[in-house]
Amino acid sequence: MKRAVVLVSGGIDSATTLAIAAKDGFETYALSFDYGQRHRREVVAAEKIASAFGARRHRVAKIDLRVFGGSALTDEIAVPKARTDEELSHGIPLTYVPARNTIFLSYALAWAEVLDMRDIFIGVNAIDYSGYPDCRPEFIAAFENLATLATKAGTEGAQFHIHAPLISMSKADIIRKASKLGVDFALTHSCYDPTPEGFACGQCDSCQLRLKGFREAGMADPIRYAQE
Amino acid sequence: MKRAVVLVSGGIDSATTLAIAAKDGFETYALSFDYGQRHRREVVAAEKIASAFGARRHRVAKIDLRVFGGSALTDEIAVPKARTDEELSHGIPLTYVPARNTIFLSYALAWAEVLDMRDIFIGVNAIDYSGYPDCRPEFIAAFENLATLATKAGTEGAQFHIHAPLISMSKADIIRKASKLGVDFALTHSCYDPTPEGFACGQCDSCQLRLKGFREAGMADPIRYAQE
Repeated sequence: MKRAVVLVSGGIDSATTLAIAAKDGFETYALSFDYGQRHRREVVAAEKIASAFGARRHRVAKIDLRVFGGSALTDEIAVPKARTDEELSHGIPLTYVPARNTIFLSYALAWAEVLDMRDIFIGVNAIDYSGYPDCRPEFIAAFENLATLATKAGTEGAQFHIHAPLISMSKADIIRKASKLGVDFALTHSCYDPTPEGFACGQCDSCQLRLKGFREAGMADPIRYAQE
Repeated sequence: MKRAVVLVSGGIDSATTLAIAAKDGFETYALSFDYGQRHRREVVAAEKIASAFGARRHRVAKIDLRVFGGSALTDEIAVPKARTDEELSHGIPLTYVPARNTIFLSYALAWAEVLDMRDIFIGVNAIDYSGYPDCRPEFIAAFENLATLATKAGTEGAQFHIHAPLISMSKADIIRKASKLGVDFALTHSCYDPTPEGFACGQCDSCQLRLKGFREAGMADPIRYAQE
């Protein structure tokens, strides 16, 4: 059976990616990160999603990106709220975590190498968040090249594949696809700054993008928002 | 002033690399990893070396590579001892940590990006340990390409440089170079399996390579070995 490491963050994109990998016939090995983020809800969501899609294993790697600072997601910088579409569509957001996908893919590669796998899935998307440099197809291609050179298997002729099936999809398309594949949106968590009770804020970039996606897909988001 | 992140493990190679970066006029930012290795002596050695060469900052990132297993350096696998030159020169050693340099360089890239630097130094060497895939020039070149694509600075036209000044040097050459640059070998730590008192075992691949290097350089190693 084909096997793949799938990066699972707890959000809709990675849940959909996991569903796609499973549908494509891969036995999945889900990998999440506990990286000093503001809340642990992401990791809890990742657990539920991995379990819902029958991941063979789920590992959570603890990494401390706060050691470098520089992002609203790992630092004490305030998460930006209620930005306009204009603001959302330009530049690199404050919530960008430096080199995050490079680090995440490096860990996925380590696990793939230990378990003798050649396939890694990541739910990056270059459309709605065009500001993130490490969500672009050229970044994925460069990592694929690196993976082959970095590993024992690669030196022996194996070719690694970094699958990024959502890379060219809009958020609305991802939500439609997720729905078709049976993703339970109630399990997913997107908010960068949830309330103490765990409700999504509805105002951060991630909530805004999620809500816009559901709106454009003509569907209702089942999770609870603080503003309701 | 030019600034660079320098990966410092506590061994001779990274100490020499730090000395080279400093001599080349870089203000240095030393980065070490506490990665569930068998002993903390490496991190202590890294502290002393960073301080000896006037690193502007020294950060230790905690990462848990044991989550994946697969190496004598992070697992409960026994460290191989007293291997022959023939064994040492063929294949990938058991002490290979999967994707380690990919992970280390990813962290270095994150820090470089936060501090707006473009230069990263790493003490990899392709000669004596030809078995490690992620010590080869083509791996370094692939990471350099990735770094430029992965970062905000790169999308704005900056070019990252991964300096690997030892990549084509023999261990004896590195030791001679280190000596010329004033590296205090007594501060460095190479052993994969030191005694409880902290003496080097003299038998693991790393000790054997170090001792061979000193022999070929016609110099004495000032550290204490368990076998003496």
